Amino acid sequence: MTWKIEDNSLDNQQLLVNESLFSLGNGYLGVRGNFEEGYREDYLSIRGIYINGFYDETDIQYGEKLYGFPEKQEKMVNIIDSQEVLIYLDDEAFSLFEGEVIDFSRTLYLEKGYVQRNIHWRSPQGKEVKIQFKRLVSFSTQELFAIEIMIEPIDGIQEVKVISEVEGDVRNFVDDNDPRVASGHAKRLTVREIEEREGFSIIKSKTEVTNLEVSCVSSVFINHQTSHQRTVKETSVSESFTCETGKPIRFTKYNVYTDTRKHGKQLVDKAVEIQKELSIQPFQAIVKQQESYLNAFWELTDIKINGDEEMQRGIRFNLYQLLQSAGKDGLSNIAAKGLSGEGYEGHYFWDTEIYMFPLFLMTQPKIAKSLLLQRYSLLDAARARAKEMGHQQGALYPWRTITGKESSAYFPAGTAQYHISADIAYSFIQYYLVTKDEAFLKEYIAEVLFETARLWIDAGHMRNGKFRIDNVTGPDEYTCIVNNNYYTNSMAKYNLLWAVKVFNQLQDTDVMEEIMVKLHLDKAEVKNWLQAGENMYLPFNEALQINEQDDTFLQKAVWDLESTPKDQFPLLLHYHPLTLYRYQVCKQADTVLAHFLLEDEEDLDIIKNTFDYYENITTHDSSLSYCVHSIMSSKLGYTSKAYDYFSKTALLDLNNTHGNTKDGLHLANMGGTWLAIIFGFCGLRVKENGIHFQPKLPQQWEALSFKLRYQKRILELDLNQEYVIYKLISGENLTIYHNEKEILLEQHETVKYLM
Amino acid sequence: MTWKIEDNSLDNQQLLVNESLFSLGNGYLGVRGNFEEGYREDYLSIRGIYINGFYDETDIQYGEKLYGFPEKQEKMVNIIDSQEVLIYLDDEAFSLFEGEVIDFSRTLYLEKGYVQRNIHWRSPQGKEVKIQFKRLVSFSTQELFAIEIMIEPIDGIQEVKVISEVEGDVRNFVDDNDPRVASGHAKRLTVREIEEREGFSIIKSKTEVTNLEVSCVSSVFINHQTSHQRTVKETSVSESFTCETGKPIRFTKYNVYTDTRKHGKQLVDKAVEIQKELSIQPFQAIVKQQESYLNAFWELTDIKINGDEEMQRGIRFNLYQLLQSAGKDGLSNIAAKGLSGEGYEGHYFWDTEIYMFPLFLMTQPKIAKSLLLQRYSLLDAARARAKEMGHQQGALYPWRTITGKESSAYFPAGTAQYHISADIAYSFIQYYLVTKDEAFLKEYIAEVLFETARLWIDAGHMRNGKFRIDNVTGPDEYTCIVNNNYYTNSMAKYNLLWAVKVFNQLQDTDVMEEIMVKLHLDKAEVKNWLQAGENMYLPFNEALQINEQDDTFLQKAVWDLESTPKDQFPLLLHYHPLTLYRYQVCKQADTVLAHFLLEDEEDLDIIKNTFDYYENITTHDSSLSYCVHSIMSSKLGYTSKAYDYFSKTALLDLNNTHGNTKDGLHLANMGGTWLAIIFGFCGLRVKENGIHFQPKLPQQWEALSFKLRYQKRILELDLNQEYVIYKLISGENLTIYHNEKEILLEQHETVKYLM
Repeated sequence: MTWKIEDNSLDNQQLLVNESLFSLGNGYLGVRGNFEEGYREDYLSIRGIYINGFYDETDIQYGEKLYGFPEKQEKMVNIIDSQEVLIYLDDEAFSLFEGEVIDFSRTLYLEKGYVQRNIHWRSPQGKEVKIQFKRLVSFSTQELFAIEIMIEPIDGIQEVKVISEVEGDVRNFVDDNDPRVASGHAKRLTVREIEEREGFSIIKSKTEVTNLEVSCVSSVFINHQTSHQRTVKETSVSESFTCETGKPIRFTKYNVYTDTRKHGKQLVDKAVEIQKELSIQPFQAIVKQQESYLNAFWELTDIKINGDEEMQRGIRFNLYQLLQSAGKDGLSNIAAKGLSGEGYEGHYFWDTEIYMFPLFLMTQPKIAKSLLLQRYSLLDAARARAKEMGHQQGALYPWRTITGKESSAYFPAGTAQYHISADIAYSFIQYYLVTKDEAFLKEYIAEVLFETARLWIDAGHMRNGKFRIDNVTGPDEYTCIVNNNYYTNSMAKYNLLWAVKVFNQLQDTDVMEEIMVKLHLDKAEVKNWLQAGENMYLPFNEALQINEQDDTFLQKAVWDLESTPKDQFPLLLHYHPLTLYRYQVCKQADTVLAHFLLEDEEDLDIIKNTFDYYENITTHDSSLSYCVHSIMSSKLGYTSKAYDYFSKTALLDLNNTHGNTKDGLHLANMGGTWLAIIFGFCGLRVKENGIHFQPKLPQQWEALSFKLRYQKRILELDLNQEYVIYKLISGENLTIYHNEKEILLEQHETVKYLM
Repeated sequence: MTWKIEDNSLDNQQLLVNESLFSLGNGYLGVRGNFEEGYREDYLSIRGIYINGFYDETDIQYGEKLYGFPEKQEKMVNIIDSQEVLIYLDDEAFSLFEGEVIDFSRTLYLEKGYVQRNIHWRSPQGKEVKIQFKRLVSFSTQELFAIEIMIEPIDGIQEVKVISEVEGDVRNFVDDNDPRVASGHAKRLTVREIEEREGFSIIKSKTEVTNLEVSCVSSVFINHQTSHQRTVKETSVSESFTCETGKPIRFTKYNVYTDTRKHGKQLVDKAVEIQKELSIQPFQAIVKQQESYLNAFWELTDIKINGDEEMQRGIRFNLYQLLQSAGKDGLSNIAAKGLSGEGYEGHYFWDTEIYMFPLFLMTQPKIAKSLLLQRYSLLDAARARAKEMGHQQGALYPWRTITGKESSAYFPAGTAQYHISADIAYSFIQYYLVTKDEAFLKEYIAEVLFETARLWIDAGHMRNGKFRIDNVTGPDEYTCIVNNNYYTNSMAKYNLLWAVKVFNQLQDTDVMEEIMVKLHLDKAEVKNWLQAGENMYLPFNEALQINEQDDTFLQKAVWDLESTPKDQFPLLLHYHPLTLYRYQVCKQADTVLAHFLLEDEEDLDIIKNTFDYYENITTHDSSLSYCVHSIMSSKLGYTSKAYDYFSKTALLDLNNTHGNTKDGLHLANMGGTWLAIIFGFCGLRVKENGIHFQPKLPQQWEALSFKLRYQKRILELDLNQEYVIYKLISGENLTIYHNEKEILLEQHETVKYLM
């Protein structure tokens, strides 16, 4: 079945991976897929609950600290642990690592939004029980993590004890073998208040440095009991229930999380209030709400594939995890690992804009808008960072951050990736093209485009009639600190020319006058943007008829990938950066990515030559690489290759092919799966004159169908090997482009074209 | 007077500077110029004694640690403190910061090799005394640091107490405001043995990580006393003497230091043995030895200037400090700060080869040879580092090190400076040119040249018929990680072609066969060296007719130095490296330095254009820059500029113009003073066909004279504004070049040429 993910492994390594795969979240709150009752004592576990954007600061250590190196790093904090529920059968503790596991399954239901574990177990002393765990993180009540446990004693049990715990003594994961994580960084949260009130267990904790507070208010319910005991300890509250075994036991635990960033100073009261609202809702009602939320989501976002179950499950899993990870409140964004793990410290990167944003933009534009609003809220921080980096003006977005402070400790592959400012600008432009939201244009987009345009003017310079941007790092992190990175320059060009376009469009309006006053902007500046944009230098190699990745990339020696032993990948774990930088070898798509995002910049034959050249020297050591190669393979008619790359994105985490899924899911790659289908196989491009399709269904598939939202309309596409059907489900008539041919779609009407 | 350095400041900031200026050393042992009795309690002091190459290892912290980043840093250790001697006059402690200082002078005698303090002091209670401190670190007995104190009570004093202390509880200097120095790094040494034996106070200590041992065996003598008491505490030994005041008191303290690196496991016995030899030598005898050693030194190394006292003192001070800093035992080299302070952790850089080595080579070749032997001893470590950096073959010398391990924590301005391997090769070649030492050529030079040549073959590659070296950093640290740095490529070319030359010269000898077997070397490799060297790519800009610093340097924007406020220098303390790297701005000579070292590589007009261009964008934020600019100004006829730059080298530490002399002296700059005179004003070049002079005396000077050693000869040059006199003092007849004209010098004969 393609609507569920199942696994019954009890192997430690797979359990760690499953903690990420079975993680639950709603964009605000995330819970790793740990077992309520824990593992064997000698097993490693990364047990965690996180709030998106709830962070502390840690010191960054440098052997040699230079001017402008960030001194602090923001870090997503592992918060109060409410996962634990222990079950005792006549004082024998239930554990899947003792006794006999007669049956065990764990299932993530993608259309229902919960994880269920079904267990049939015989204890070492021969007592038999069936237990069902259900857990969900609610999309409707963002603060809620709920657990339901059904215990059905079968044989020989007199008494069942259930002990539920909420633990405030938590710390972030530390790997002693990984020198990047200092042990001193692990303990970020201290319990400040702990109490029982109105039947709720309450813990409030505070971060070490940022003084942010988080509270967990927990309530438990059991359908029958003989005794109940609550113990408030120094950092934890536990509740113990003893039940007779006459009938099945139903236990529920509602954990409500609030924090100062979202709920303000009265966070505990707010959580108690939410608990009271929930108290009238049985678990089944919450499950229903969850299903109904997901119905609405899948209605617009599902992609149906006929004839390829594995990929169907892969894409659904990836879409589901994206939904779970995306901040929806304007306060938070999408961390590189979502809320599924602590890798990359919960930081937001360009991953959002280039790899994940398009999915939301084209299917869930409200979420897309909230992501943009979060980036807009960082604009002041980006202005400050530009100043710190020696710029007279403009906004330089940090490479990795939570609240806008640069948190990258290795600037050649961090701060130097100036392109993130253009990537963010690009996403604002895409939003405008897809929504035509004029109010948003005036209130937010204009300012972001103007401030990022200013950065390029200050970071670059005119020379011999060409505008050049020196000393940056492009997306390919195996080539750092170069002049005129093609990707950066072409994205900056787009940024600059759109800033001019928006300025001209709004010129002489009141809004524009306000903006000009606010930003001290004059027309001479806009002229500079135009000049720089129009004369942007884009490196091109005449002999090879390809775009150069940067001024000197093609003059370097070519890395001999064929002779490199497989165990030497990813190269970054086996070679000093100086070694990598010395060769023509790419960690990921760079120039090729620019050709995807800005295909009108070059002729098709150059795009093809460029792809052919770089593909040969790309290791895909970054998980951001496959999807772009799939899209461009589709564009260039390399259909089998396109499918091959696509399949790697679809299964990257499910098959743990990068080997580090335990640290969290590769969210950008998941967004890339969607891109590879919609922008790849279906050839979608959003241009100023409308949306374009050039569909080519992979030969492995019988049919494909999905919906898109575009300018207040809903479109549906149905493809098979012979033809494609376009349908305008709602909204006004629309002209689209099929293989560059104009087509008028009329409401509720269907048009059908041969592929 | 130009033979002494004087200062009587009691200001804290100047005292810190004076600790470096009045530091004493002999290349093995170094003692900072602290006061025996200490300062005021609230004064900062960097109190230190060091042994050249005696080190511990500390962990390097990284925010993000990548493959091949060094995990440990070598660090010169502050060792057992024997400086302390306290004087009490009837229980009033003598201190220059209490009572009345009637007279105070401190003098470093450059021709005698000691520091003397003369004090006339009245205590707060009105007791008057004259005290003279003399201290020296012996050149003849490298282990000895000796102090003599003469106390002459003048008025109202009944009893004088002298307390001498040897303290083992020492730590390295930590600046809490400097995040590069973690406090945990400070305590590197633990006392392991402490005792009194045969009248000596003995402490033996061990380093934390490297398990190296150092011992201090101290003996004190006083010419009369009423009582004597010795106290052995946990980490210190103190001896207290009480004297009547009938006649002047003479107190001496001999401190003998030994360590496991130089003296082996029996280091304490060795120190006791040396003490016993010294016990028959009064302080005056030791002073005599010191003077005699220095006579011999100055006889060959002094530079006499008529008509410019300030510069005369400057150059003598600098030459003296170079002598004090240079390791002479083949185990040690010259630290960037010599033995005068803890800046740069006592590391050896290319500073030795390019800035200091020539002075020793041309005046004290035995010292020069010992410096080369130390580098030769690091060859295995350099081979290992090459492997670690991904090279199949060759030797990559670490950028900063003590025993051969790379200790640089910021690779773009550290490890990436591959040129250090060519710099070391260059110094071996220079040694051969000056000494024609064929035995040394066979035993050491050949192997060093071959292994460094191999590095270039592996680090570079042929492309379109040119040999290119990508992804290195040249001397200019404001421009990092570039392709085809002119300096690096031209030095590598010299390295490669000399490797071929030496191979050809030794071909078919037994020695060569041994080397070929040892290094698995075949002739095909040598052919590669020749091909790479002959086809080395040296960037050249046609339009400007100058050499480019690297492939893309001249395409960047030019830093506006004129509009940069003075308080923003040095730039590295006020701008992020990415900002600096983005502009045409140089910290120091780079291409210009290559034109000095390898002037035959380019035509004079190109050299001139190049100098004119780069001089305008050079900040001289590095202390290595002035001297090169002085030399090249001399060469190009910019005589007033040449003098101006020279004067900055001569007084850099004496006037603390870089503001950080407290952390130690700028030894390379001191070597540069000598270079600016000999290679600059006198135009010396050492070439294969002999030595060349093109003298141009600065107009500020009446006359200049000095000696040089060259191929077993001693030459003397006497210059005034009208003519130059060349004299062959010893050795066989020699042809030299004066302004490119051949001159035959006959023994004891003098030739005179108009300038």
